[in-house]
Amino acid sequence: MNWIKELCALMGACVRTDEATLQAHATDKWHAAALPEAVVLATNTEQVSAALRFAHERGIPVTPRGAGVGYVGGCVPVKGGIVISVASMTRILEVSPEDGVAVVEAGVLTADLQEACSRVGWFYPPDPASRKESSIGGNIATNAGGPRCLKYGVTRAYVLGLTVVLADGRILRCGGRTHKNKQGFDLVGLFCGSEGMLGIVTEATLRIIPAPPARAALHASFPQFAMAAAAVQNTLQGGHLPCAIEITDAFTLAAARNHLGSSVLPAGARGHIIIEIDGQADAVSTELDSIATILRNTGATEVVYARTEAEVEAIWQLRREFSYSLKATGLTKLNEDIVIPRSKLVELVSFCECMQQETGIPVACFGHSGDGNIHTNIMVLKDSAGRDIREPADALVSRLFDWVMKHGGSITGEHGIGLAKAPWFEQAIGAAAMDTHRALKRALDSAGILNPGKMGL
Amino acid sequence: MNWIKELCALMGACVRTDEATLQAHATDKWHAAALPEAVVLATNTEQVSAALRFAHERGIPVTPRGAGVGYVGGCVPVKGGIVISVASMTRILEVSPEDGVAVVEAGVLTADLQEACSRVGWFYPPDPASRKESSIGGNIATNAGGPRCLKYGVTRAYVLGLTVVLADGRILRCGGRTHKNKQGFDLVGLFCGSEGMLGIVTEATLRIIPAPPARAALHASFPQFAMAAAAVQNTLQGGHLPCAIEITDAFTLAAARNHLGSSVLPAGARGHIIIEIDGQADAVSTELDSIATILRNTGATEVVYARTEAEVEAIWQLRREFSYSLKATGLTKLNEDIVIPRSKLVELVSFCECMQQETGIPVACFGHSGDGNIHTNIMVLKDSAGRDIREPADALVSRLFDWVMKHGGSITGEHGIGLAKAPWFEQAIGAAAMDTHRALKRALDSAGILNPGKMGL
Repeated sequence: MNWIKELCALMGACVRTDEATLQAHATDKWHAAALPEAVVLATNTEQVSAALRFAHERGIPVTPRGAGVGYVGGCVPVKGGIVISVASMTRILEVSPEDGVAVVEAGVLTADLQEACSRVGWFYPPDPASRKESSIGGNIATNAGGPRCLKYGVTRAYVLGLTVVLADGRILRCGGRTHKNKQGFDLVGLFCGSEGMLGIVTEATLRIIPAPPARAALHASFPQFAMAAAAVQNTLQGGHLPCAIEITDAFTLAAARNHLGSSVLPAGARGHIIIEIDGQADAVSTELDSIATILRNTGATEVVYARTEAEVEAIWQLRREFSYSLKATGLTKLNEDIVIPRSKLVELVSFCECMQQETGIPVACFGHSGDGNIHTNIMVLKDSAGRDIREPADALVSRLFDWVMKHGGSITGEHGIGLAKAPWFEQAIGAAAMDTHRALKRALDSAGILNPGKMGL
Repeated sequence: MNWIKELCALMGACVRTDEATLQAHATDKWHAAALPEAVVLATNTEQVSAALRFAHERGIPVTPRGAGVGYVGGCVPVKGGIVISVASMTRILEVSPEDGVAVVEAGVLTADLQEACSRVGWFYPPDPASRKESSIGGNIATNAGGPRCLKYGVTRAYVLGLTVVLADGRILRCGGRTHKNKQGFDLVGLFCGSEGMLGIVTEATLRIIPAPPARAALHASFPQFAMAAAAVQNTLQGGHLPCAIEITDAFTLAAARNHLGSSVLPAGARGHIIIEIDGQADAVSTELDSIATILRNTGATEVVYARTEAEVEAIWQLRREFSYSLKATGLTKLNEDIVIPRSKLVELVSFCECMQQETGIPVACFGHSGDGNIHTNIMVLKDSAGRDIREPADALVSRLFDWVMKHGGSITGEHGIGLAKAPWFEQAIGAAAMDTHRALKRALDSAGILNPGKMGL
């Protein structure tokens, strides 16, 4: 009896080995794919524990999976074995304004949690662009961010307690229900962002905060990208800490005018920012005015206010359209979520423009300028037969990462390392940090079964 | 030649073995004391590295030390050996609003950093009560909090990058200068709050934010503690997220009236809260009014506004006086920084009142009610000769911790485990978490030399 039969005998109907299920668990939003040998569709922590104990005893590779919408191949089972999916663990167990917590299973979609909080006037701030399709488990595994992290911080700042199944199947409960907790090492933090390599999160107790009563936004166009970048600095220097400050470069704006029509943005706009603020209603209104003044003083040619919920949503829709406009070029985009120190925004975009001029490969930059997390999209050109000319684009990714590392940046701010960025990982963090990763991995997964092959570990 | 002579020969004048220096490095603010055999007064990372390499090779215990003002005996060298002090590493290397970072050596006092940021209109939010005497290194080792953490989060939320000397002397740089960073495991977070048991932090890159242009506060008295607790809930439920919401119980208020005079608080005040808000000037003013309305509607008998900087400071001075008033009783206070889920404030105080009635030992509760972090002070009675009657007070601490654990709380929110809370540590976190602590400790400190004897590890 091989191990697959044993696993089926042990765990019953939650184990799937049919081709369709294996295929559905072979990939994420990156291009890599590999079939697992079995999939466990877990509906509770005990099943995850049983499957991991089984795998640990036999040295079978295990790839944890949430909603499967990551960007770095993090849940691709490159070594085969078992995929353990928590996508069916979708219960919101509790939303408690009295304690300021929500308790959820790992498969709950982020947007569903946000709605449940919103219904009682509370707020779960982390807002990855994928929030309607990504799950809390995946958000925790990648320590997901989003535009609002400028003011509110990334996922880690909202995780108070976790139920984690360790590599050998033991169930660990760490952190808890309190907003402060200094009991020993920060185990909660260690599992946040660990990309399924140290344990499988099955349940989380999350911090929620009172929903700000009002929000408002504005967007502004500039004749030069450098002016838009200066506006980011001037807004912060003016004592404002918006929820989000998004910036967009000339290439993306041109694509947007092509795709959406020339009336959507002023002609000659080569830089653009979106600023969202929230708080008490009166405050939001006056703060919006003073930010608008800063933007005009920094050279904005057009400032558009959004004071109602519908108007604010329209601005974010415009932001999403920028991304669709790049897709509408028909080119494949390699979206790299690099982060640079905030003062280096202009240098980054100039560097990308130089690369573009030199190679003819378009590079489009837009993203979370407040925290320097710029999505840098390298557009893959096509040959005469319509096939992607991948190699020179990949070479550009390498040049971009080299530049980022040389300028004190990070090669990933939101998506993680996974498979996609593993080739640059040791160069990015250094030998001592790599050794430390190996030591931690050995300490918590002695058999090396958890998500093997990721991060080059 | 014994190891002390070798160490002196290796490192020269930064090694001290004179009695006065040994005595000065024997204790913190808790009652335990133990002499080291040598003290290294490090002035740079390389010295810390050399000392640790030396100790690692010989298996000599090393106790890291910052400003030495912790509350749990965390820097007491209970196993002798070497104390490595970073208290002389006091350089603020950089304050950069452009990048939103400050770079400091570990010995910089928190208040000095805050002032340096303030001078350029920026803000480092974490505000432990000890900020004028505690150092950033110690703040990181304990993941320090403070009143403002309700809105702004604890120290971890502000640490972007660290230079850490590992137990074997290797120098690890982790994180960096960017506001987001998803490069692998969260090493920065692992060292935050690790109480000097996994490495010695020598330098930190910290996130700073634009200083809010205005702040204001109010304090309010209530005829019942439960009303004050309800006011905390109603303020948050009203869509307000103040910087701080501090609560004080009847015992402490009575001590304050005794110490400060009866005019300081209304007669019959059995509950009291302080609320501080910050933001744009207009906003702060109107928000203060709407919070005051909530407090009055919840039964506040007196609401006092503080709209100027001096008035706000006066309110915080009153808060400090509460603490001094307890000291003025002449009794030793065992200050336990427990945390409970916020909805259990009234239950906690009722439990403490019952313990007091039953044993005659006063218990005073005040603290950061917004996040449930209540400083619970068990007052040690004296015998006829004026000596502390310690045993029954210690027994009350145990009962308090049992209650806290049973009600989903944490036995420490700010001070850490160290020696003081080691006896309850495993009970508080459970066997699986304790095993995980041991595994991490072994992984990063194979010789077990770093701060041995703390956390029961």
